[in-house]
Amino acid sequence: MAEQKKLVEAITPMEEDFAQWYTDIVKKAELMDYSSVRGCMVIEPYGWAIWENIRNFLDARLKELGHENVSMPLFIPESLLNKEKDHVQGFAPEVAWVTMGGNEKLQERLCVRPTSETLFCEHYARVIHSWRDLPKLYNQWCSVVRWEKTTRPFLRSVEFHWQEGHTMHETAEEAKKETRRILELYAEFCENQLAMPVLRGQKTESEKFAGAEATLTIEAMMHDGKALQSGTSHYFGDGFAKAFNVTFQGRDNSICHPFQTSWGMSTRIVGGIIMTHGDDSGLVLPPAIAPVQVIIVPIAQHKAGVLEKAAELQKRLNEQFRVKTDDSDHAPGWKFSQYEMKGVPLRLEIGPKDIAKNQCVLVRRTDREKVFVPLDHLEAAIAEQLEKVRSDMYEKALKNRENKTSEAKSLAEMKEIADSKPGFIKAMWCGDPACEEKLKEVAGVSSRCIPFGHEHESGTCVCCGKPAEKLVYWGKAY
Amino acid sequence: MAEQKKLVEAITPMEEDFAQWYTDIVKKAELMDYSSVRGCMVIEPYGWAIWENIRNFLDARLKELGHENVSMPLFIPESLLNKEKDHVQGFAPEVAWVTMGGNEKLQERLCVRPTSETLFCEHYARVIHSWRDLPKLYNQWCSVVRWEKTTRPFLRSVEFHWQEGHTMHETAEEAKKETRRILELYAEFCENQLAMPVLRGQKTESEKFAGAEATLTIEAMMHDGKALQSGTSHYFGDGFAKAFNVTFQGRDNSICHPFQTSWGMSTRIVGGIIMTHGDDSGLVLPPAIAPVQVIIVPIAQHKAGVLEKAAELQKRLNEQFRVKTDDSDHAPGWKFSQYEMKGVPLRLEIGPKDIAKNQCVLVRRTDREKVFVPLDHLEAAIAEQLEKVRSDMYEKALKNRENKTSEAKSLAEMKEIADSKPGFIKAMWCGDPACEEKLKEVAGVSSRCIPFGHEHESGTCVCCGKPAEKLVYWGKAY
Repeated sequence: MAEQKKLVEAITPMEEDFAQWYTDIVKKAELMDYSSVRGCMVIEPYGWAIWENIRNFLDARLKELGHENVSMPLFIPESLLNKEKDHVQGFAPEVAWVTMGGNEKLQERLCVRPTSETLFCEHYARVIHSWRDLPKLYNQWCSVVRWEKTTRPFLRSVEFHWQEGHTMHETAEEAKKETRRILELYAEFCENQLAMPVLRGQKTESEKFAGAEATLTIEAMMHDGKALQSGTSHYFGDGFAKAFNVTFQGRDNSICHPFQTSWGMSTRIVGGIIMTHGDDSGLVLPPAIAPVQVIIVPIAQHKAGVLEKAAELQKRLNEQFRVKTDDSDHAPGWKFSQYEMKGVPLRLEIGPKDIAKNQCVLVRRTDREKVFVPLDHLEAAIAEQLEKVRSDMYEKALKNRENKTSEAKSLAEMKEIADSKPGFIKAMWCGDPACEEKLKEVAGVSSRCIPFGHEHESGTCVCCGKPAEKLVYWGKAY
Repeated sequence: MAEQKKLVEAITPMEEDFAQWYTDIVKKAELMDYSSVRGCMVIEPYGWAIWENIRNFLDARLKELGHENVSMPLFIPESLLNKEKDHVQGFAPEVAWVTMGGNEKLQERLCVRPTSETLFCEHYARVIHSWRDLPKLYNQWCSVVRWEKTTRPFLRSVEFHWQEGHTMHETAEEAKKETRRILELYAEFCENQLAMPVLRGQKTESEKFAGAEATLTIEAMMHDGKALQSGTSHYFGDGFAKAFNVTFQGRDNSICHPFQTSWGMSTRIVGGIIMTHGDDSGLVLPPAIAPVQVIIVPIAQHKAGVLEKAAELQKRLNEQFRVKTDDSDHAPGWKFSQYEMKGVPLRLEIGPKDIAKNQCVLVRRTDREKVFVPLDHLEAAIAEQLEKVRSDMYEKALKNRENKTSEAKSLAEMKEIADSKPGFIKAMWCGDPACEEKLKEVAGVSSRCIPFGHEHESGTCVCCGKPAEKLVYWGKAY
């Protein structure tokens, strides 16, 4: 019981210090450990298992849609990075440079890839010849490095893991469609699998990806009212293709440049899951990606038949769910706290009285409600309870976002809301980057996105008062 | 037909130039492409799919045995690499050094990990406290970098992919058992899944891993008689644990150092598959890891019902096998060559006559034998034919190894065999590194391994003639 108390006391309450609460959770739930390299984490088994589940789901979806996995080199020669002007300006200040190989100074510096557009383009230039070779739908799972000054576990790290898709298409229309198709895939994944409601929209010019023509984004809201950019999908036009001399023979035999997209979702999303769903007892994991979906806790396990029954259930349920049994010597109360900390969606308690009645108890992580279930219908009951956990999580997150979304009509109102009420602020914008910059300076908010369908409304700019047709969600962001 | 001819002509025959044959295959079968970074490859979809199948199989086996996946940082600070003396001596000359982050010079150089013992030890020092925390059975899938001077696709590259397992145990016995258990896992994987017979044995002192007490290895023989070290498993004793101050409280409350292992299998094995099984028509892939196990080629596909039947079979067989249909406009003959080049284990031909008889034709990649199969029993027939492909591949590889294994009693005999007959040479060795060195100089062969069970034979050293009890397999190696 001493250990149980220690565990519970060790988490800083969210309301007291949200940042510390976050740090406590990533450590206490054993998601990660710091390393001696600044900003690079050790992702521990429990944290990596979450990422593997995310990866397996997205990977299967991408393959269904026709994408193929490849592996590009870890390094980019400086001259290759320099080929597209906007891109290099965006990334050069934040890359790690390899200058020595063994004991020799390299003739040309190599950067550790911060993203791989340049490498994909170089390869595509060699393998794309005819319109028959298009589309190319390639993806890779890897880690990339960005020399960030301030880092936080999962949210912003020097090295992070992601998938990066890079596609080439015959027409601009097809490429734009791909950009949107993938954004929708990300959005549905967040909403249906991770129980995270997201805004779908387009970034403003000043917030778009270095070298892109357009950046689409999904924006989630964290429990503290800050936004998290959770996935992006970029349309490049044929700008990179021209810079890298990627060409193909078109249907009319003319030489054309293909149209390109790239898109990624990263380990950052693990931080998003924590900050969307977690509470003062610890992590709360969406069932779809929880490494353990059901934790079996035997009650009065020294009594005859209890551990045997627990083992029998474990074996039976493992066919369909990810199940673990804790038959250690710790008290049940300690185990309850432990698996609440780890965010396991459902607890299954089984003791002598339950066995006598041929039943067990299911307890949801979300509301700790107890449900008595006949063992004969256990699989169906677990499936139902896991779905209830997911939908409750989604509803709670949606309500949080609704409660924390405001509207502003003037700069003064914007500043007042930004100072007093964390969350999204909806406001019209004329499209002038100067107004965007001023909102940042005065109210401390950045544009999160122009939600799809709100590009042509009528109103006046929240900043300059001139006519405006774009609705923008503004906010503070991670 | 022009394209078909082109394809077939493009491979250099093995007997003419084995190295060129190899290079032709990796390119023509679309396994990889060169990049502008020396020694770093683009692994193309077909090559990466092979690696994914290898990874999925090994990953599932390792998880069954209780191993957990983690992710360690990409970088190692120079001071951390320096902590274990033998290790740093082995690796420092061949690492890539990051010296700049953005525009700033780093205070301490970081090397791109060549292997991760140091990182695992640093983490283990923080998370291992008691004997109850042991064993720790961690693994990661990642790429590592070694600044090799001479590189070849898959066989020796500057960046390569692998899994690296790193475990910590309470006792030396347990760690040694783990080292051996994993070697056996690798050996069985090679033999049963990849149809590659391997020697299991121990490396000599001079060939062992930098910092290890013992290195176990599996050695395969390539078609040209050269050896390929295909997987290694190292026992470290408590040397690293001492250097990194990893301690735990033992059962008797004393402070102890744990005993360590590490082991890895890499993308090198893809090169091994090519050179063990390939022939002058191209790649020959073991069914267990072939991205496409059955290629359906419709015959007279313009005739009514043929493409429909092919699609029906594709859908039906996909439940159980990895199946693809080529319904492109290319002639059947072109398709035959194309999928032979790509090493697809089985071809399924279906045409109007077959449909009339409710049958199809299966053709094995290994011997091009045609088998007529009633459609009602197709799944069973395919399973049987795939198994026959696998066992034929294994038998052929084993025979090649047997034909190319010789025995030598004297240095002169050793030299003569080494010069005239590529392959393994069995010979007794006294254990003196000087003799090993001399064999390298005079006969150009290195010790591959002391096979398990042959550590205590009686004989005289092939080099110095003194009493010797170790049987060693010698050879030229990749």
